[in-house]
Amino acid sequence: MNTADLQSNLLVRMALMAWDAQNNQFKKVINSLLDDQLMKEISPGRNSGVYLLGHLIAVSDAMLPLLGWGDRLYPELEGLFITTPDKSGQSMPSVKELKEKLKTVNDALAIHIQAATVEEWLSKHNSVSTEDFAKEPHRNKLNVVVSRTNHMANHIGQLLLLS
Amino acid sequence: MNTADLQSNLLVRMALMAWDAQNNQFKKVINSLLDDQLMKEISPGRNSGVYLLGHLIAVSDAMLPLLGWGDRLYPELEGLFITTPDKSGQSMPSVKELKEKLKTVNDALAIHIQAATVEEWLSKHNSVSTEDFAKEPHRNKLNVVVSRTNHMANHIGQLLLLS
Repeated sequence: MNTADLQSNLLVRMALMAWDAQNNQFKKVINSLLDDQLMKEISPGRNSGVYLLGHLIAVSDAMLPLLGWGDRLYPELEGLFITTPDKSGQSMPSVKELKEKLKTVNDALAIHIQAATVEEWLSKHNSVSTEDFAKEPHRNKLNVVVSRTNHMANHIGQLLLLS
Repeated sequence: MNTADLQSNLLVRMALMAWDAQNNQFKKVINSLLDDQLMKEISPGRNSGVYLLGHLIAVSDAMLPLLGWGDRLYPELEGLFITTPDKSGQSMPSVKELKEKLKTVNDALAIHIQAATVEEWLSKHNSVSTEDFAKEPHRNKLNVVVSRTNHMANHIGQLLLLS
């Protein structure tokens, strides 16, 4: 492998390490909280911990089709945790069930993440057109991971307020 | 430029775009809040908005020496916003003054960020030893930016609770 190839590999790995770091931090925060704490709002009148847990699972699950890696595992979470705000009167899965779904989604993503080459990471994701991608090559699969990493960091900062 | 060089350039640019996106979001949130709102706590008993504003400026300022780009511009912010928690009885700069410092720090960083080559980004930062860096080449200058991007996203999630 030449120097530039080594550089590309390292740069991809750094983005994936950042994704893993946030996912590990997310699990750590979730597992440090009692179910009762997770049911509370992060700040008066704001989202509950369990809503943010479900929201982050649903967003990760939606990465599967976006990255061309198959269908979502739990499409029903979109209505509960993405398109509908917290406290809309819908019944939510239990914390235990959500934690299991989190693990299943993360395991499914990890298989594809580990297998992807630099070329795949730099190929277009499924919500950008071929024409737009030709002009904006940063709208690739790895950038979905980068953007979801920051989104997760956003909500981890909020979940930390429950502890 | 060959394909692998183009890939490395694109990958570096993606990390820098993520940094810029968080910085723009940070400024947007800060500027959307009245000074009175910024003085409030993000959640009862937690950090105030103004403390988080100062904290993020101090952390960005400390990137200058860490990345080998010169001394911090406002070393006095470390004691106020990094090593000391909020509500320690120290007098803080005003919101107006902090916003000016934020701009000055960001402008200083931007000059170096725009000038840095892929090789510089992948070189070691100043808080890792040459020996450790040889074993862990991801501990480079760009990774400081990636990690600070996620740190900023963390606190932006909290600042959003003030609006």
